[in-house]
Amino acid sequence: MPIITLLTDFGTEDEYVGVMKGVILSIAPDVHLVDLSHRIPPQAVRRAAFLLSSAVPYFPPDTVHLAVVDPGVGTERRALAVRTPAGTFVGPDNGLFSWVLAEVPEWVAVEIREPAYRLPRVSSTFHGRDIFAPAAAHLVAGVPLERLGPRVTDPVMLPVPRLEIGAGVLEGEVLYADRFGNLVTSIGRFQWDGDRLILAPAFRPASGEMALSPKGARVVLADVELRGIRRTYGDVAVGEPVALVGSSGFLEIAIRQGSAAMALGVVAGAPVRILL
Amino acid sequence: MPIITLLTDFGTEDEYVGVMKGVILSIAPDVHLVDLSHRIPPQAVRRAAFLLSSAVPYFPPDTVHLAVVDPGVGTERRALAVRTPAGTFVGPDNGLFSWVLAEVPEWVAVEIREPAYRLPRVSSTFHGRDIFAPAAAHLVAGVPLERLGPRVTDPVMLPVPRLEIGAGVLEGEVLYADRFGNLVTSIGRFQWDGDRLILAPAFRPASGEMALSPKGARVVLADVELRGIRRTYGDVAVGEPVALVGSSGFLEIAIRQGSAAMALGVVAGAPVRILL
Amino acid sequence: MPIITLLTDFGTEDEYVGVMKGVILSIAPDVHLVDLSHRIPPQAVRRAAFLLSSAVPYFPPDTVHLAVVDPGVGTERRALAVRTPAGTFVGPDNGLFSWVLAEVPEWVAVEIREPAYRLPRVSSTFHGRDIFAPAAAHLVAGVPLERLGPRVTDPVMLPVPRLEIGAGVLEGEVLYADRFGNLVTSIGRFQWDGDRLILAPAFRPASGEMALSPKGARVVLADVELRGIRRTYGDVAVGEPVALVGSSGFLEIAIRQGSAAMALGVVAGAPVRILL
Repeated sequence: MPIITLLTDFGTEDEYVGVMKGVILSIAPDVHLVDLSHRIPPQAVRRAAFLLSSAVPYFPPDTVHLAVVDPGVGTERRALAVRTPAGTFVGPDNGLFSWVLAEVPEWVAVEIREPAYRLPRVSSTFHGRDIFAPAAAHLVAGVPLERLGPRVTDPVMLPVPRLEIGAGVLEGEVLYADRFGNLVTSIGRFQWDGDRLILAPAFRPASGEMALSPKGARVVLADVELRGIRRTYGDVAVGEPVALVGSSGFLEIAIRQGSAAMALGVVAGAPVRILL
Repeated sequence: MPIITLLTDFGTEDEYVGVMKGVILSIAPDVHLVDLSHRIPPQAVRRAAFLLSSAVPYFPPDTVHLAVVDPGVGTERRALAVRTPAGTFVGPDNGLFSWVLAEVPEWVAVEIREPAYRLPRVSSTFHGRDIFAPAAAHLVAGVPLERLGPRVTDPVMLPVPRLEIGAGVLEGEVLYADRFGNLVTSIGRFQWDGDRLILAPAFRPASGEMALSPKGARVVLADVELRGIRRTYGDVAVGEPVALVGSSGFLEIAIRQGSAAMALGVVAGAPVRILL
Repeated sequence: MPIITLLTDFGTEDEYVGVMKGVILSIAPDVHLVDLSHRIPPQAVRRAAFLLSSAVPYFPPDTVHLAVVDPGVGTERRALAVRTPAGTFVGPDNGLFSWVLAEVPEWVAVEIREPAYRLPRVSSTFHGRDIFAPAAAHLVAGVPLERLGPRVTDPVMLPVPRLEIGAGVLEGEVLYADRFGNLVTSIGRFQWDGDRLILAPAFRPASGEMALSPKGARVVLADVELRGIRRTYGDVAVGEPVALVGSSGFLEIAIRQGSAAMALGVVAGAPVRILL
């Protein structure tokens, strides 16, 4: 059974997500519906773009990812469908897919315009229901992408998350705090290679790799300086702060069995540095 | 695969919703389970009735909608199953379905009483698990509605949401704030017809239609007066309030990329008027 | 279609749950995914163990229950898969399954170690994705439990929830407040038998049963004393406190159409007594 994932800022209080699923199942009755998140902060396109780039690699490539974080609904912004080797994407043209697109070798995008693949009546406030859900359903039901509308070669691309590589220093920013209060930063992606860390800068496929020694590194965030990049929370005592490589390969600052976001009082955008 | 939707005030912290799904899948293994919402405010029957009336039109008519917002659990209130051309409904007889029923041409209701279609042991506190989930599952598995129990001709009907049409004025009330802080009102349903708005009063199928000019209208809520009913949030500047037709056809007051509920300090029940 | 349930403390803000589902569906495309809860308080292993013991009886015995509340991720704690007559369980070896295991006649446990049934790259921070989700998926896809790794005969067992039976008194503790503010206690499981209550102490299968008269009983919690154990909320007036048998058979203290947790200011661990 094919998969459609859903990513929105609609929350789960109202009927909006359920209605999108009703529309999808009315068109494509045999599909797995998987919620990525509906609790993106309202209209936080960057947060959704990052979440998508972390989730997509774990789904089969024939998955359709439907993402609706859409502050521009009802304006002239385009509706997009994009086919890539990593999956197919449907949503507003506001940069949601730009960090996925930065890492695939090729993609084909179209503007969703063909009335046959929308609901009969299109509102000005809920394109998730009227345009995007039907398009995703028709795609999994076998409609070729090109039938949805004309080619688009210039989708909106967000600037990539900050990562500056200097002499003996890597500089980035806090992107967000996850549910545990772990501070996820833009410095990555790292991979462990024995005792070394290999950095392959995310969203910049041509930028090569560098190795660094995690033990000697110092991580500086606000007025905290942490010695070493650890493998896991358990490498420090309960209640202690720790710098480590998070599950998507980005530097995280956590507190073992606590909340770094609360303890350090740091918000998104705060600068982070690794001193080598 | 047939669909069962679930609508409750159970939240998602506890096992209650998962347990209902276990009961359903034990009886009807091949069914799509779609959550409408589990975050209805505790025991808010009116909110659930309205949500249901907004969601049902987007599901296939053979869907079973299971709704459990049930302040009277364990009292003498009846357990209902209702078949309509728009879908089949299962839940307590407390008005949950009355706004759906107001808009369908015909329906057949029964009281769920037949022990064969309940769990063997029925608690006094969780009929969602013991009575309603099994009934919904047996219905999608093909049990005829009439087998569940005796006919009911007088289900509880809630008063319909307030809408008074006077000389040059439409009067209603704020029903709730959605996740974005948009204030959804009882004045609707509207549809755009070119530059005009057509009002077909919701839940009153015999009441005919009227046309109005959205540009000249003034919308009054608390101490705010808004000129014109717009098509979408993007028709005003960021941070500005706007009156528009929401995705289900009801008048909404929103703030572009903000929360009208927070900015205006308005709660459910506040009166709203459109001056024509 | 087989079922995998998911129980975590991951919340639904981030991509973690969706990613686990992507991993599962990549391995076992035809499976029902049912969320038990993702809002277990962070790292609250006892709460998750109790929830699991309440939910498991309502699922078919060929269900795989995947539970990841894992404060010890990345340390030496084992990864477990356990087959029982009530279902199969996958998760960290920290006691999550101990209250289910206390009530089944037999079980077989293995440590998940075989690299063929993990993701190719195992992180130190997200075993839900890298170890547990793949193991659950391979199990529903037909891989025999014994193939996952060596037998384990000493999984971590939590102390069972407090229940002391004295002369004319039953003593326990508040376990948690549910979404409605109902205070769920460790005194149970009770079953109604006509006008009597039968107590079969939970998690202690060999301890026999006792009968008690609910009318004469007094329930003492903090500075509140309630006369009688009732059948349902409707047995008292709106706003009044009531002691009753909750849907899983444990004593609960509730307030009809209100929140006992808020009104009584009681937290988990507070002692509760039934005076007979």
